[in-house]
Order: sequence, then structure tokens, then C-alpha cells
Amino acid sequence: MATLRVPNEVPSPAQDSETIHNAFRGWGTDEKAIIRVLGQRNENQRKRIRETYREKYGKDLIDALTAELSGDFMKAVILWTYDPAERDARSLNKALKEKKKRIEALKVIVEISVTTSPHHLIAVRKAYCSLYDLSLEEHIASSQPFPLAKLLVTLASSFRYDKDKTDEEVATIEAGMLREAITMKQLDHDHVLYILGTRSVYQLRETFAAYKKNYENTIDKDVGECPGDAELRSLLQMVILCIDYPEKHFAKVVRDSIEGFGTDEDALTRAIVTRAEIDLMKVRGEFYNMYNSSMDNAIIGDVSGDYKDFLITLLGSKI
Amino acid sequence: MATLRVPNEVPSPAQDSETIHNAFRGWGTDEKAIIRVLGQRNENQRKRIRETYREKYGKDLIDALTAELSGDFMKAVILWTYDPAERDARSLNKALKEKKKRIEALKVIVEISVTTSPHHLIAVRKAYCSLYDLSLEEHIASSQPFPLAKLLVTLASSFRYDKDKTDEEVATIEAGMLREAITMKQLDHDHVLYILGTRSVYQLRETFAAYKKNYENTIDKDVGECPGDAELRSLLQMVILCIDYPEKHFAKVVRDSIEGFGTDEDALTRAIVTRAEIDLMKVRGEFYNMYNSSMDNAIIGDVSGDYKDFLITLLGSKI
Repeated sequence: MATLRVPNEVPSPAQDSETIHNAFRGWGTDEKAIIRVLGQRNENQRKRIRETYREKYGKDLIDALTAELSGDFMKAVILWTYDPAERDARSLNKALKEKKKRIEALKVIVEISVTTSPHHLIAVRKAYCSLYDLSLEEHIASSQPFPLAKLLVTLASSFRYDKDKTDEEVATIEAGMLREAITMKQLDHDHVLYILGTRSVYQLRETFAAYKKNYENTIDKDVGECPGDAELRSLLQMVILCIDYPEKHFAKVVRDSIEGFGTDEDALTRAIVTRAEIDLMKVRGEFYNMYNSSMDNAIIGDVSGDYKDFLITLLGSKI
Repeated sequence: MATLRVPNEVPSPAQDSETIHNAFRGWGTDEKAIIRVLGQRNENQRKRIRETYREKYGKDLIDALTAELSGDFMKAVILWTYDPAERDARSLNKALKEKKKRIEALKVIVEISVTTSPHHLIAVRKAYCSLYDLSLEEHIASSQPFPLAKLLVTLASSFRYDKDKTDEEVATIEAGMLREAITMKQLDHDHVLYILGTRSVYQLRETFAAYKKNYENTIDKDVGECPGDAELRSLLQMVILCIDYPEKHFAKVVRDSIEGFGTDEDALTRAIVTRAEIDLMKVRGEFYNMYNSSMDNAIIGDVSGDYKDFLITLLGSKI
């Protein structure tokens, strides 16, 4: 359930390109026009606008937006304008190059690997090879420490079965294998990595349910209390959340990004831009359930200017 | 360099379908007609014949061939008629279910994962999910023992960078990492698995060359002499050969399949069918270099009947 609202009557890509081109002309830029056009077009429409813009004006729309806009607003509009596979490939590359907040950056790899569709993840890997002249998995394996690298390569290389078909017996057996690894304090056990990294999300949800039924605690809680490598533990907890309740994960990302002093605009932008066409309506609902407050109001209260206008447009409001 | 010979003038898919349909009519089957048609058509032409056959006669050509042909001839023609991604998905599934000659079967996984193109391997994984309602990697991880499963999942999940671009410094460093693991007698070391499983074949060839330069022996020889898990050692040696010299690997498969008493028809068929459109000419050359004898003569001397006629047709001879 998307929040993105596309008007009933949409101008042609040529008309949209012209509106954008005109917004760039003269002194200053008409940011509102950019928001009204790009912020109300779906993936395919944006793709056609970018193609048409290049044909008409001989320039990549991304370059034009980079030159004309600035700050978090620019970053958000550009992320939204990229083809989603290219967008995610770029986010992954940025994450792999991050030196300071390494574990936060690695969470982006988990997020993209686990919460997007198997076909999309393959498209991201193809885009990664084209953009960076190396494969996503070799970049992870050669730049990250083990066992984190092992987990991340397995997640990023997965092409999970995507139908809602599960096996109760497998769920019980594999819940037992996960339990055993946790009891032995071996979060880096191959069984943990390969069960979480290769099984379908539907099967894993059944496995987590079997875990809860047979061992009382949720697997998330037990992993959280397992001693050992804190970074691995934190990534594994995120894998479990992203599999079990992707909407809760994104509600948490939004909440974490605006809580306290300052805003983590990159995280906020990523959550809104990547989910606006997928399940942001459900994320909004989960946000309310989890924090007993409105996600939209919380965002509006924390950001400002064109950046705010762009985000609330993606959230389905008119500016 | 393929051995497959497609005639200059090829009948339409409708005409070819009719020839095949007529070959099935009356008492007995005209096997020679089947060989002349299917054995001289490329991948795309076979695909169109299969589609057209279904339209004209309301039956899958594979089912018709299964009903009309028999033995190794039938198995070879069917393998050749499948879409290559479907064909390899079926071979992989058969390999994963094999109980008796397990290690020989697992070599099929290595062969398909390492010697086919990254894009083809993705197509195989998609076909696998469609045919078997589970992903290739979850089938491997849940049915094979570790560390073999780890190696095989990594190989089968790879989407290697496929351009001829290498980094000499990386080659030297990673040759050192491989050497260290071998010296420590740890063939299941993560460095071994992830270097061999994620780097491009071009990069790995450079790494193997650096290994030879810096440590005298070839990496193949050092792995071969490393004590420990014999099955893992044998699979790793095959990975190295498939990366360094895929043609030598297939020459060896052909040779092993016909040497001694009896013939391993499944292996022979697989090698000829899967490489006839890719590099079987080079395989033939390597066979001569390695065994100082003609591959074609060796095959002809070992098989007979329609099966022989079909194989030599794929090898480029007229029957």
C-alpha cells in the first residue's frame, strides 16, 4: 500500500520534462514545480521523464537536478529520480565505503537485501557491476570483516523463493537448529547464516513462529541476549525484524531518524523514498501502533522547506 | 567457438515442427530426421521450434520426444531441446537428489556455477524456483553437509563481474591469503571460499598466476597436496580448473566418461550438449593437447546407434 499519489490526469513525459526545464530557467529555481511533477509520478513515469528529458535537452535529468537543487532536498529528489535498482546500488556502494558509522552503514545492506523483492535484488546486483566494475558480493567480501562479511554476502546474493508456500516440519526443525546455535552462543554458526540467508521470508516467518511456540521467547529476544560479537548480534536482530515485520523496521528507521536533537536526513529520506511506492501506508500504521503518534506529524515537525514539502508529497499530501 | 553447424538455409519453425511430427508418425520413429532437424539448430531456433510445435500440435515437444525416443539418445535430445536455463536447473536438481555418487553429482553444481556466464546462472536460479518451488541455494544449504554446502552456495549464488579488468595488487594480496590458508591446512577458510566464490574469473586467473610466480607451485597442486577433507579438496581443485581452463575441464569430463570399461553417458552427454554452442571446438583442441588423440574418434569408438549419430552431429559432422 503506497502513499504516493499520482493525479488522475498525468501530463505526457514531454510536457513534464518541459515543466521541469522551465523550473530551472531564469534566476533561482521553481522548486515547487519540481516537487509537483516528480513527487507525483510513479517509477515508470519518472523513468520516461528522465529518458524524454535527455532526448529533448541533451542532458541527464540527474545532472540537471544536481546543478539546480541543493542540500537534503536535492539528495531526496535525486534518489527518487534514479531507477530503483540504480538507486539501491548507489546506496550500497556508499554504505560499503563508509568508514565512521560502519555498523549503521552495513544495516543499509541488510535492509536492501532483505526487504526488497528477489527480482529487484538481482537488478541491483546487475546495476552494481555496471556502475562500479566489481560485483556487490566481492566488494562486501573484500572490504568487511568476517563473520559480518559472510552474513552480508549471503543476504545480498540471495534469490529467495517468493511464493507464500511453507513447510511446517522444516520450520520446526530449523527453529531447533537456530535455538541450538543460540544456546551454544554461536551466532555465527553456519546454520544461522544459511537458514536466515537462503530460506524464503514466508518460510522464515513460520520458523520464527515455531521458535516462539517451542522455546517461549521470540528469536529476536534470544538473539538480543546472546553474548558475543555485538555487531553481528545487532545485524542479525535487524535481519529478523526485516523478515518478520518490514513495516515495523521502516517505522523504526523513521522514528530513529527524527528522535532527539538533529535529524538523520539520509535515513529518513531513504525510508520515505524507497517505500513510498511499496508499503509506506502500512509503515504509517505501524508507526502509530508502536509510538502512539502520527508519523506524518512527527516528520513535519522535524524537517522544513522544500525538503519537507517533497517528503509530505511522497506521503500523499498536496503542497 | 562452437562445433554446432547450422545449415545456410534453415526451414521455418513450422516446417521443422512438421518434419519432427512426421518422424513420429506410423510404426517406429524416424530418428535420423529428428537428429537432422534438432541437431542442426541453435538455441533460439530450437526454442522457436518448441513453441511452434506446441501451437501446431497442442503438445510439448519434450513430452513427444520422451514418448517416441528412448535411452541415452532420448536423454541427450531432450537435454538439447530444453531452454538452457531450464536444462541446467534440471541437472542441478538431479545432482542435489543423487544419493550414491554424491561427490560426482556435486561437481555438476561446480561446473554449472563456474563455467557458465553470470547472466545465465541467474536465469538458471529463476528457472529453479519456478520448477521446484524452492531456491537453488536453500536446496543446497539444506541438503548438503558443511563446509561443502558453504562453498556450493557461494558459487551458485555468485553474479561475478564479467569484464576483462584485473587488479595486479589485489591478485598478489589474495594469492598470499590463499597461500596462507593452504599452509595452515585450512581449505575451508573463509578467505578461500570467498575469494574463489566472488571474484571475477579474469581476476582469479591473475591471482592464480601471482600464486605460481610467488610460491613456485601452481595453486592446483598445493590444494591437491593439502591434507584434510578429501571431498572439499576435490571440489576446490575442480573450481580452480573450471576458472583457469574451462576447456581443459570439459576435455577431462569427456575423457573420464569414455575411459575404461563402460561409458558414463550422462557426463558425456552433458559435456557435449552444454558446450556445443559455446566452446566445444576449443575443448576438442585441449583434448588433443592433453591426451594426444582425437576427441571425436574417442567418442565415436565408445558409443553407438542414434546416440552416436546425435553426438557427432553436435560435433559438427553430417550423418
